[in-house]
Amino acid sequence: MCGIVGLVGEIKIADLIEALEKLEYRGYDSAGLAFLNNGKVQVEKTKGKVADLKNLVLDRIEQRINVGIAHTRWATHGEPNDINAHPHLDCSEKIVVVHNGIIENFRYLKNRLIELGHRFFSETDTEVIPHLIEEHYKGDLFEAIRKTVLKLEGSFAIAVMHADHPNMIVGARKGSPLIACEHGLASDVPPLLKYTKYMVPLNDEEIVVISEDGMKVFGFDGVEREKRAIEITWSYEDAQKSGFKHFMLKEIFEEPMCLVSVMTGRIKNGKVHFEELEGLKERLKNINFVKVVACGTSYHAALSFKYFLENLSDVNVDAEISSEFRYKRQHLKPNDVVIAISQSGETADTLESVRLAKRQGATVVAITNVVGSTLSRESDFTLYLNAGPEISVAATKSYVSQITLLYLLALKIMEIKGIWDEKHEGLIDRLLRMPEIFEKFLDQVDNIHQIAAKYKDFKHFMYIGRGYGYPTALEGALKLKEISYIHATAYPAGELKHGPIAMLGPDFPVFAVAPNDFLFSKTKSNIIECRSRKARIVLLTNEGNEEAFELADDVIFVSNSIDELYPILMTPAIQLFAYYVADELGLDPDKPRNLAKSVTVE
Amino acid sequence: MCGIVGLVGEIKIADLIEALEKLEYRGYDSAGLAFLNNGKVQVEKTKGKVADLKNLVLDRIEQRINVGIAHTRWATHGEPNDINAHPHLDCSEKIVVVHNGIIENFRYLKNRLIELGHRFFSETDTEVIPHLIEEHYKGDLFEAIRKTVLKLEGSFAIAVMHADHPNMIVGARKGSPLIACEHGLASDVPPLLKYTKYMVPLNDEEIVVISEDGMKVFGFDGVEREKRAIEITWSYEDAQKSGFKHFMLKEIFEEPMCLVSVMTGRIKNGKVHFEELEGLKERLKNINFVKVVACGTSYHAALSFKYFLENLSDVNVDAEISSEFRYKRQHLKPNDVVIAISQSGETADTLESVRLAKRQGATVVAITNVVGSTLSRESDFTLYLNAGPEISVAATKSYVSQITLLYLLALKIMEIKGIWDEKHEGLIDRLLRMPEIFEKFLDQVDNIHQIAAKYKDFKHFMYIGRGYGYPTALEGALKLKEISYIHATAYPAGELKHGPIAMLGPDFPVFAVAPNDFLFSKTKSNIIECRSRKARIVLLTNEGNEEAFELADDVIFVSNSIDELYPILMTPAIQLFAYYVADELGLDPDKPRNLAKSVTVE
Repeated sequence: MCGIVGLVGEIKIADLIEALEKLEYRGYDSAGLAFLNNGKVQVEKTKGKVADLKNLVLDRIEQRINVGIAHTRWATHGEPNDINAHPHLDCSEKIVVVHNGIIENFRYLKNRLIELGHRFFSETDTEVIPHLIEEHYKGDLFEAIRKTVLKLEGSFAIAVMHADHPNMIVGARKGSPLIACEHGLASDVPPLLKYTKYMVPLNDEEIVVISEDGMKVFGFDGVEREKRAIEITWSYEDAQKSGFKHFMLKEIFEEPMCLVSVMTGRIKNGKVHFEELEGLKERLKNINFVKVVACGTSYHAALSFKYFLENLSDVNVDAEISSEFRYKRQHLKPNDVVIAISQSGETADTLESVRLAKRQGATVVAITNVVGSTLSRESDFTLYLNAGPEISVAATKSYVSQITLLYLLALKIMEIKGIWDEKHEGLIDRLLRMPEIFEKFLDQVDNIHQIAAKYKDFKHFMYIGRGYGYPTALEGALKLKEISYIHATAYPAGELKHGPIAMLGPDFPVFAVAPNDFLFSKTKSNIIECRSRKARIVLLTNEGNEEAFELADDVIFVSNSIDELYPILMTPAIQLFAYYVADELGLDPDKPRNLAKSVTVE
Repeated sequence: MCGIVGLVGEIKIADLIEALEKLEYRGYDSAGLAFLNNGKVQVEKTKGKVADLKNLVLDRIEQRINVGIAHTRWATHGEPNDINAHPHLDCSEKIVVVHNGIIENFRYLKNRLIELGHRFFSETDTEVIPHLIEEHYKGDLFEAIRKTVLKLEGSFAIAVMHADHPNMIVGARKGSPLIACEHGLASDVPPLLKYTKYMVPLNDEEIVVISEDGMKVFGFDGVEREKRAIEITWSYEDAQKSGFKHFMLKEIFEEPMCLVSVMTGRIKNGKVHFEELEGLKERLKNINFVKVVACGTSYHAALSFKYFLENLSDVNVDAEISSEFRYKRQHLKPNDVVIAISQSGETADTLESVRLAKRQGATVVAITNVVGSTLSRESDFTLYLNAGPEISVAATKSYVSQITLLYLLALKIMEIKGIWDEKHEGLIDRLLRMPEIFEKFLDQVDNIHQIAAKYKDFKHFMYIGRGYGYPTALEGALKLKEISYIHATAYPAGELKHGPIAMLGPDFPVFAVAPNDFLFSKTKSNIIECRSRKARIVLLTNEGNEEAFELADDVIFVSNSIDELYPILMTPAIQLFAYYVADELGLDPDKPRNLAKSVTVE
């Protein structure tokens, strides 16, 4: 996730900076802008935050310009540094581009462009875009861009300027958000609110041309589209959260996009593709043991991975909490693979675990959301979540991305080991449909809101699940603890009778994570036992489970799926339940007391 | 643990039965009695409870006898069946013995006695005793017994009758309890309370002779000892609990004895000795992975084992909860060893896990307290806890026995693998001193009682620990949940900042398991963080930790030890804390709501 913006009209460089500041929640590892100065494209960019960019142009901040584009980055391809920062130029230095998203076929395009004589400076995927436009440019900027976007695979929102079109910005979208108005375009509403409250959200495969003549929208087919502007009634503060009350809620609603983003470029012809792991392939062939280290929510993702890979292959997975791993003697061997998971890539205990593993000669694969983070730098291989910045302290979208990415990794391991059949094909197929299923689920959150309101005054909660449901129960309890401060405990349902059931009663409800899978009849017995202790039951299960209402006081349904995918599918439900409980209690879920977003100390 | 009794005077067979009923808490897998009938020893015994024995002798229940001994069994050597039931006879069928304890050198003695022409019928260790007495008997029963007990290694309390001494019972004790009065002797006070309230508790290496001439006590050296009777002021019901308010408290106070019992015969010349595992030795030589399955408290013992064996050797241990293990695909190989832990030996999920493991060809070692239990029958090897019956639903003494036995097993594995140095010698040495350390600790429980009283009204508790302290924290939280119904959660201290700390506050105290080991400075930081959230702190640490009172509101000290042994050493403290909280709340810790002693269904 990055933030892009383009402005047209009587503006100053300061306006570009101000717009970027309002997009900084989308990324902040580097920033840049471009404008026309005496008919030439001038680019200013730097590693760091928007404030660093502002310092860079401080002496010219009041300079009047007619058109400008700008970018604040959340790195995906290439480390955050001055060169990889956007905007990027073509060879003629007349065409300049900012981009949000991932160009999956950039390597192929880059090689072809190099053959044609183009020179590249950065490691980014983005840089192919201005060069491709250059190739196609015959005086018609719109047409050159249209031809270019047809060649791009992946997801993108771009804004383009050309030195020979001094009052024009062209934008295009496929898979990444883009909002346009007569004054410009941006990844989100906030930067434009200063100029108008009437905006046009672009659809996929649309191109927008903004100039002195106004704004026109076309399809990738070149045909003009009629668009109706919507009126934005949010305040600026709301707009930053896209109209959501809290970042947490907004980020849960970003999960469909995160699912797209984490799978982009990683599934090809029904198989998982990780070019990042090419060098690991040989080692994975005979692997039968994987160690995973992580903390908090990431640890729960690790547990889902354990269940998935152990159930579908002959690989043993040992998931360990980093703060314990690092102080216990480890017996890693040079051929062992350790997976280290941390959204921020800066979790102190996980970093120390990685160092310990590396000292023992193990190969470390990092799973993180932050390009260039310490974790990614110190690991041998890194898979990025590409989930964009997560503002809310409680992890939500990054958790969905983590499980999905770990599932893809598990599938890759199985493919390399020669374990592959219709089951695996079916999983890939279902994963690809997951974003749509999430969209559908998120259309119906009122039910969860209403149930949450009923349970907000309880002081205790017991989350139970079996098999794939157990890590989800752990994460559900953690979310509730973190943001509502309700004391929630999670147990494998089979453990209840070994002690915890003694606590249950009318004041101690149960949240059962129990899809109608092969373990449902077992969990059902546990639910009935809980009921007989007069505990109220919230049941999270799948549509078509006819016993649901007989068993539970309240039911949350998700779509039918195959057993293995419920850990992904059920996640927004447990997150939304915790969110609405906290919100109903009048708490700020974005900033839970005593917690920091990333735990960089022990 | 078994119960023995002997009565002298004008009694009926019914009196022996009644006495046994009062000892049934010490064992109930078989029962038997012996009396003199027309100058001959008559033995009646059966597998089953005292009620089964009563049925067997129902037609003679009012028969008058002058002397009788009886036994209710908790099997250690030999399955519970009619033949292994006590009493046991010599070849002449004149000498008859009941026994509580373990004769460590019984195989040696048995072989020698067979060489001398003695015939044995049972698999018990006990049967060597009457034959040895027969060897030594030259008309003086006392002297024959005195010579016999000098040959016995292990722990025992015995009662002996001889057909030619029709009004005499001789008892002897070493390591197992024995109470005597002028009317008879017994393992405990209750059976004798009907006859007198003045009793003499025997010390180790004492022999008591009770006859028409009264009661006399001698040392094993043959010198008479002066003994003073104590007055028992307990009611019968109290007496059954040895004067303790609840079985749970009584069983915690039995832990020193359980430590002796679980180590008896298993440490020789500074090394661990398990004749039960002879057939496993070869396989253990190259072992580098052990799987452990268990539920509830037994699972926490499994985690202690994991920390211990992983830290001291190159063996990886994967401890898994049985109800999850059995429904997840397992990748066991024929050379793999699975350890299954269950106090009762009847835990349904653990039994199913064992069956699954065996189907995959793995070798299963059972750790259980019940000889002949399903677990022991279905496993390839069994190590018994020898902790005696545990009446209280919440496991206490069996947990101490489990960890100790698992430590011995870990030490055995290391020895077989050739991993052995002064560290291991030191551990053996310290383990042998553990019963004494426990005795000392249990002399000072008032402090724990007072602290518990202060915290009884909290509704929440957070238990934290690192490394070896973490399984102890889990078990501490489980005890509190089970019997006080206070919602307690346990976390590795390093995980607090990843979410759970948000819940802490003045209403949510912390119980920190933090000996002054190499991780203390880390846990200390976590404690300080909890304090800064105004959470009250109970600190369980070791004597000499000078920072304790600065850090915590309340401190429980245990003896100094080496890091590895704190899981054993700290256990009575967490158990007593939970016990006193429950008792202060007016709850019955022996019968927590909704819980059963052994979970024989899923």
